[in-house]
Amino acid sequence: MNPFDLQQFFSSVRKNSEEICRPLEIEDYVVQPIDDVSPPKWHLGHVTWFFETVILQKFQPNFKPFHKMYNFVFNSYYESFGTRVFRPQRGTLSRPTVKEIYAYRAAVDEQMQHLFETLEQKHRPEFSRLVTLGLNHEQQHQELLVYDIKYIFANNPLRPVYQKAKARPRTPEMKAAYLDIPGGIVEIGHKTEGFAWDNEMPAHQVLLRDFKLQNRLVTNGEYVEFINAGGYADFRHWLSDGWTAVQEQGWQAPLYWEKHDGQWFVMTLSGWRELDPHEPVCHVSFYEADAFAKWAQKRLPTEFEWEHAARIMDVKASEGNFLDDRNFHPLPAQATAPRLQQMLGDVWVWTASAYLGYPGYRQEEGALGEYNGKFMSNQMVLRGGSCATPRDHLRLTYRNFFQCDKRWIFSGIRLAD
Amino acid sequence: MNPFDLQQFFSSVRKNSEEICRPLEIEDYVVQPIDDVSPPKWHLGHVTWFFETVILQKFQPNFKPFHKMYNFVFNSYYESFGTRVFRPQRGTLSRPTVKEIYAYRAAVDEQMQHLFETLEQKHRPEFSRLVTLGLNHEQQHQELLVYDIKYIFANNPLRPVYQKAKARPRTPEMKAAYLDIPGGIVEIGHKTEGFAWDNEMPAHQVLLRDFKLQNRLVTNGEYVEFINAGGYADFRHWLSDGWTAVQEQGWQAPLYWEKHDGQWFVMTLSGWRELDPHEPVCHVSFYEADAFAKWAQKRLPTEFEWEHAARIMDVKASEGNFLDDRNFHPLPAQATAPRLQQMLGDVWVWTASAYLGYPGYRQEEGALGEYNGKFMSNQMVLRGGSCATPRDHLRLTYRNFFQCDKRWIFSGIRLAD
Amino acid sequence: MNPFDLQQFFSSVRKNSEEICRPLEIEDYVVQPIDDVSPPKWHLGHVTWFFETVILQKFQPNFKPFHKMYNFVFNSYYESFGTRVFRPQRGTLSRPTVKEIYAYRAAVDEQMQHLFETLEQKHRPEFSRLVTLGLNHEQQHQELLVYDIKYIFANNPLRPVYQKAKARPRTPEMKAAYLDIPGGIVEIGHKTEGFAWDNEMPAHQVLLRDFKLQNRLVTNGEYVEFINAGGYADFRHWLSDGWTAVQEQGWQAPLYWEKHDGQWFVMTLSGWRELDPHEPVCHVSFYEADAFAKWAQKRLPTEFEWEHAARIMDVKASEGNFLDDRNFHPLPAQATAPRLQQMLGDVWVWTASAYLGYPGYRQEEGALGEYNGKFMSNQMVLRGGSCATPRDHLRLTYRNFFQCDKRWIFSGIRLAD
Amino acid sequence: MNPFDLQQFFSSVRKNSEEICRPLEIEDYVVQPIDDVSPPKWHLGHVTWFFETVILQKFQPNFKPFHKMYNFVFNSYYESFGTRVFRPQRGTLSRPTVKEIYAYRAAVDEQMQHLFETLEQKHRPEFSRLVTLGLNHEQQHQELLVYDIKYIFANNPLRPVYQKAKARPRTPEMKAAYLDIPGGIVEIGHKTEGFAWDNEMPAHQVLLRDFKLQNRLVTNGEYVEFINAGGYADFRHWLSDGWTAVQEQGWQAPLYWEKHDGQWFVMTLSGWRELDPHEPVCHVSFYEADAFAKWAQKRLPTEFEWEHAARIMDVKASEGNFLDDRNFHPLPAQATAPRLQQMLGDVWVWTASAYLGYPGYRQEEGALGEYNGKFMSNQMVLRGGSCATPRDHLRLTYRNFFQCDKRWIFSGIRLAD
Repeated sequence: MNPFDLQQFFSSVRKNSEEICRPLEIEDYVVQPIDDVSPPKWHLGHVTWFFETVILQKFQPNFKPFHKMYNFVFNSYYESFGTRVFRPQRGTLSRPTVKEIYAYRAAVDEQMQHLFETLEQKHRPEFSRLVTLGLNHEQQHQELLVYDIKYIFANNPLRPVYQKAKARPRTPEMKAAYLDIPGGIVEIGHKTEGFAWDNEMPAHQVLLRDFKLQNRLVTNGEYVEFINAGGYADFRHWLSDGWTAVQEQGWQAPLYWEKHDGQWFVMTLSGWRELDPHEPVCHVSFYEADAFAKWAQKRLPTEFEWEHAARIMDVKASEGNFLDDRNFHPLPAQATAPRLQQMLGDVWVWTASAYLGYPGYRQEEGALGEYNGKFMSNQMVLRGGSCATPRDHLRLTYRNFFQCDKRWIFSGIRLAD
Repeated sequence: MNPFDLQQFFSSVRKNSEEICRPLEIEDYVVQPIDDVSPPKWHLGHVTWFFETVILQKFQPNFKPFHKMYNFVFNSYYESFGTRVFRPQRGTLSRPTVKEIYAYRAAVDEQMQHLFETLEQKHRPEFSRLVTLGLNHEQQHQELLVYDIKYIFANNPLRPVYQKAKARPRTPEMKAAYLDIPGGIVEIGHKTEGFAWDNEMPAHQVLLRDFKLQNRLVTNGEYVEFINAGGYADFRHWLSDGWTAVQEQGWQAPLYWEKHDGQWFVMTLSGWRELDPHEPVCHVSFYEADAFAKWAQKRLPTEFEWEHAARIMDVKASEGNFLDDRNFHPLPAQATAPRLQQMLGDVWVWTASAYLGYPGYRQEEGALGEYNGKFMSNQMVLRGGSCATPRDHLRLTYRNFFQCDKRWIFSGIRLAD
Repeated sequence: MNPFDLQQFFSSVRKNSEEICRPLEIEDYVVQPIDDVSPPKWHLGHVTWFFETVILQKFQPNFKPFHKMYNFVFNSYYESFGTRVFRPQRGTLSRPTVKEIYAYRAAVDEQMQHLFETLEQKHRPEFSRLVTLGLNHEQQHQELLVYDIKYIFANNPLRPVYQKAKARPRTPEMKAAYLDIPGGIVEIGHKTEGFAWDNEMPAHQVLLRDFKLQNRLVTNGEYVEFINAGGYADFRHWLSDGWTAVQEQGWQAPLYWEKHDGQWFVMTLSGWRELDPHEPVCHVSFYEADAFAKWAQKRLPTEFEWEHAARIMDVKASEGNFLDDRNFHPLPAQATAPRLQQMLGDVWVWTASAYLGYPGYRQEEGALGEYNGKFMSNQMVLRGGSCATPRDHLRLTYRNFFQCDKRWIFSGIRLAD
Repeated sequence: MNPFDLQQFFSSVRKNSEEICRPLEIEDYVVQPIDDVSPPKWHLGHVTWFFETVILQKFQPNFKPFHKMYNFVFNSYYESFGTRVFRPQRGTLSRPTVKEIYAYRAAVDEQMQHLFETLEQKHRPEFSRLVTLGLNHEQQHQELLVYDIKYIFANNPLRPVYQKAKARPRTPEMKAAYLDIPGGIVEIGHKTEGFAWDNEMPAHQVLLRDFKLQNRLVTNGEYVEFINAGGYADFRHWLSDGWTAVQEQGWQAPLYWEKHDGQWFVMTLSGWRELDPHEPVCHVSFYEADAFAKWAQKRLPTEFEWEHAARIMDVKASEGNFLDDRNFHPLPAQATAPRLQQMLGDVWVWTASAYLGYPGYRQEEGALGEYNGKFMSNQMVLRGGSCATPRDHLRLTYRNFFQCDKRWIFSGIRLAD
């Protein structure tokens, strides 16, 4: 990216975070209903702290931190940067106020813009590298902001609404089909010039068998069949840990589903409404995705199968339903001749691949090395982005990862065979 | 109280709750750092819900609730009024907003004032009884508001300040002494016309031995001696449950104490400052009060001894340091000839009496019966009010009660022998 | 007690502990199904350790401990004697074996008998005092052995039987009645020569009102009425902590009750059998006793009322159903003219009194002071002994105490008014 | 295996389980110090229940269960076979007694032997298949018996000894070296006639890069260097979940290590003794193995690398240190020219591979399908067997699997590069 574009990218990403929060009341910025959810004001501060600590502190002559306690308050999990507020305590901090955090953002932005204008040429490559990193980091938190705002709203008995519902044309059903994908020795991972996380590298070869991939995402209607067939009551479909989760957490349906008088309703950021059977199922855990696949006598694709199929079928982000489209909800597949739809955007799909380092993976030195590598245990890979992902944040090689029982993320299912 | 006075009392109590919250930022109203603490906005709504549910619903023709979900949101623990937000979840609710709650207060107040003006004569006695109850209830929550705001501020690494520190004249030390109190068959409990809680009744006789009572509250300086003597490290001073609490919760000093470079500091609502050795010790649990007394080879008074001494020595609330004085902190005893000082206000004192019903106690029917009686197990009685208690809320017969390990209350120690 | 009697008492108590364990398989000695229950082999070792550590170590010339680790293994909760196995870990220790513990008992007994024969006259008074204490201590553990064996057997799906059922004559129902007991200034506590625990002293005066006391214990039949009336489903009968216990622990009936095809069954040490409606209800918590009393529109007596009534009605231990009778289960009241029955033996009754020190109470110095005083918080007093108590262990002034939610003890209900 | 051999195999496996338990006291059979550990008597009953339920029930005419409750008592985790004792409760059951369980074993063995003699020809293939499965299952529990007995003994403050220490010749140190292993498209998994678990199939091809594998296991001496370098105190070596485990569980060294006066000691089944620096490190979690590898700037091999290397280097089980050798402890590598030593036996090595199904994996129908497939989440693969594994139980394709934090297993480290 040339410097000018990067500066513009900086302004646009920074502005987008604030746009996402615009519909919130001050109180909405503060709460943390479960450990996984962070208060929106914390996200806004944390991404700013990243620029302050990683970039300003390094490049700004006579750097002075905006506030001496913010390193303690806004550090997420970087052991390298010292002690920090214990994660489940984020929602117990009334200060700094929302107003103070916006002031913090403005102050850091101003200094960043100044650096863009004035930084000596010799520092520019490293500066650009770190700014790019910081912006990708902020984009990830934009996605988390959407997850967390949805949870905060859904958790509230007054059932607040984030944005008015858009008109949604009733779509005909797109039938499920399986497309043949040829295997072989295929190339996996990132090897072009642009930005990618260290966990997408090194690019390497993987041996795949021929396989079949579902043309579209699994729908709510299909998932209701699983529920109606007693899917949540039959241990045979479930991994042992999954069956424990079903019982301990009392799962009967995806997160944000409620049944009233025989009709399923779902929470959306435009409030609760009737379940649309043609929309992709969303907010399922890996355990549910895996159980559904077993029940359907299919399986989840590996992350290598997914990436390979996406590459050879030449799927386009421009066709996907991303954060930029402000739907904040997955959309039904289009009724077309069978082709690979909904690969990018809508919902992340759980893969059958554990989140591990690629052959030859070495994590970055220092604090930035804590970003991906240290999470390589007990998590599964998701692929493809969601309607909460910024479109220009995604790549075909992008690896998202979460623990098997997480459901507040925008996660769904695509079957393989 | 005549009706006019009651209406004025209503206005004044309602206003006082809002006064207490005036220094807060909106964010401060929302958080719940520990289960014991409720968000200030919850207190403001809950006391209002009490008037709406107990009084407006009963006396208001064509009563309509302000919001159909508020009964769920603002019920504290009244099983009679149905399901409610689980207590530790209060801090997860961003809505209703602070602004909406103030609007709720205004709407309920307006209807209450209207009832004061228009209620039929025949309903007035019951109305007055319930309004009095509701106001005493709100006064109790004013005290809790002070506790909770202090905790919220102390919990915050940015160390916010609630009000500027007042000038504090340096007082000479008042020496400890023990006053002889004669025993006999004494009268305990409430039997006059005015308002009292059901747990202060029936008045009854108790047989007391002659005893000695300390002339003033135990001071920080005396408590530091206990600490320096290894009080927190020697199991012999402690009740078994207390010793467990010391170890599991890592107690080394009262709540809100911190040691830096050999000097103790305490959190006040005017920020952190050096410990004043002449101030009464505050924020100790029953276990600490009891251990201190054992270490000092004295004991805690029973609630009967305390009440009897207060009555025969004719102590005056007007001399005490109460919420009305806006100190929000206990003050040192005055250097005088030995007399019973600091019996009312400053800090509640833990007594050696378990919180149980008086002989002949019967709890009220219905929801209001849930107020006191159902808590009569595993709690100890405290007496005398604190600097967070409204002065006109207290009586000599007043019984406060908490579990033995609570420390966020304004609680201290007076010894007996 | 003269020395000769004491030596005989020693032999008899020591033998009785082993008698209680005679029906056990080795495996039964080892397990700890819940934290409250200790493995029988631990009890046998612990009471022996008490004699070894408190007496042999003091009086035996050239004392050598039987095993250097037994102080760690068999100390219960005496901080004075150093670190010890964490209570919930007792059931994780396979060694020492049962055989080794019996050898330990024999070795300590032999040395004790030798001391009885040879101890210098000047040491005899202190020796006698400590032996008496140790034997009372062992008698308390005999009672716990019965509780714990019952729990271990009831917990086992194979439903083992401890002893064959005795023939039980079917008794006619004894109707409930209330006897008038006059109040006044009454004497409470121990003041004679014989042994008593420090918590029964000092004897002192208490002012009582006139009251009524039920002639017999509450029966299973009466308790079933409470259950059938929805007693466990109506919060209004319950203390707040009790209601929490009902819900968290899923209480629907006393411990060891099971309902099959509409008929209640109870576990006894002679196996499961149909509930006898005339037997005293047993294995209820304080919360259940209190809720039952509220539902019956009566109340529990205070410990002072109980002791006073027992004294003036001259109740006799010789008529009671104690451990010596080897019923291991409470018996129905006799059908007679109304008189105070079942005051001693059968089941301990929960009183309305919190377990606190009497006026002037000072706990003993040193390790033995840890025996009673440190438990004076969050417990209620029970009175009267049970069918698991040795007859000669009990006194009218005897104070037993447990937390409000304990149910594995032989505890029941007598109402007052 | 021909039928005659199978019958002999049956007798020998069954006898071996009892041999392993021979040194135990009855009490040692009963306890369960942590959830992971099962009481030895439970293992002996459970493996017998497997033969009774899976084989006798199917093939025995007029089958009658030995005891109607044993299905409840001895089912481990098979949902297909109904409810069962909750795993952490296994150590709370004193009955059935050890004697009863040996009688159960004898009764089932007798019927099994009878079936071997008399079963109709047409049932023989399925019978053989299931007997083979049952024996492999029992062999796995033999290994667990060793783990669990070690834990039970180590947990006991009396420090019992399982067998007398064998003479251990002092070996010279074998230097670490890295052997080059060529990659390519390699064959992974089981495809011969003999028995294998479903998780070893289907055999399939994997693409491997060239890599280096350490010639021997990592030693205690090397691991002490990691400890001395502050390995347990530096977050940079650790996975995030691993760092949490270090802190929450207070890890400072492998399980069963203790430091006294600067010298490390280890628990063995022959009691505690000084750490031998040349022995393979044992009882480390995956997190510790991974952290050690990162600190050493190496990595753990994948399970595919391990299997490929073992196959092409033609390693022999006959050279390994297995259960049959009754060392119950790993042995030092031999000082030889660099070659691949200690691949089989001694300790299982943690691999970098998550435990997932091979391409095309389908789990068996019915109860036996619960054996492996349902555990395919949140676990890592271990390879190579240990000194607690029966020699004839192992194969090069054998996949063991445990959660990342388990340490009571005989697990160690071999590095790759």
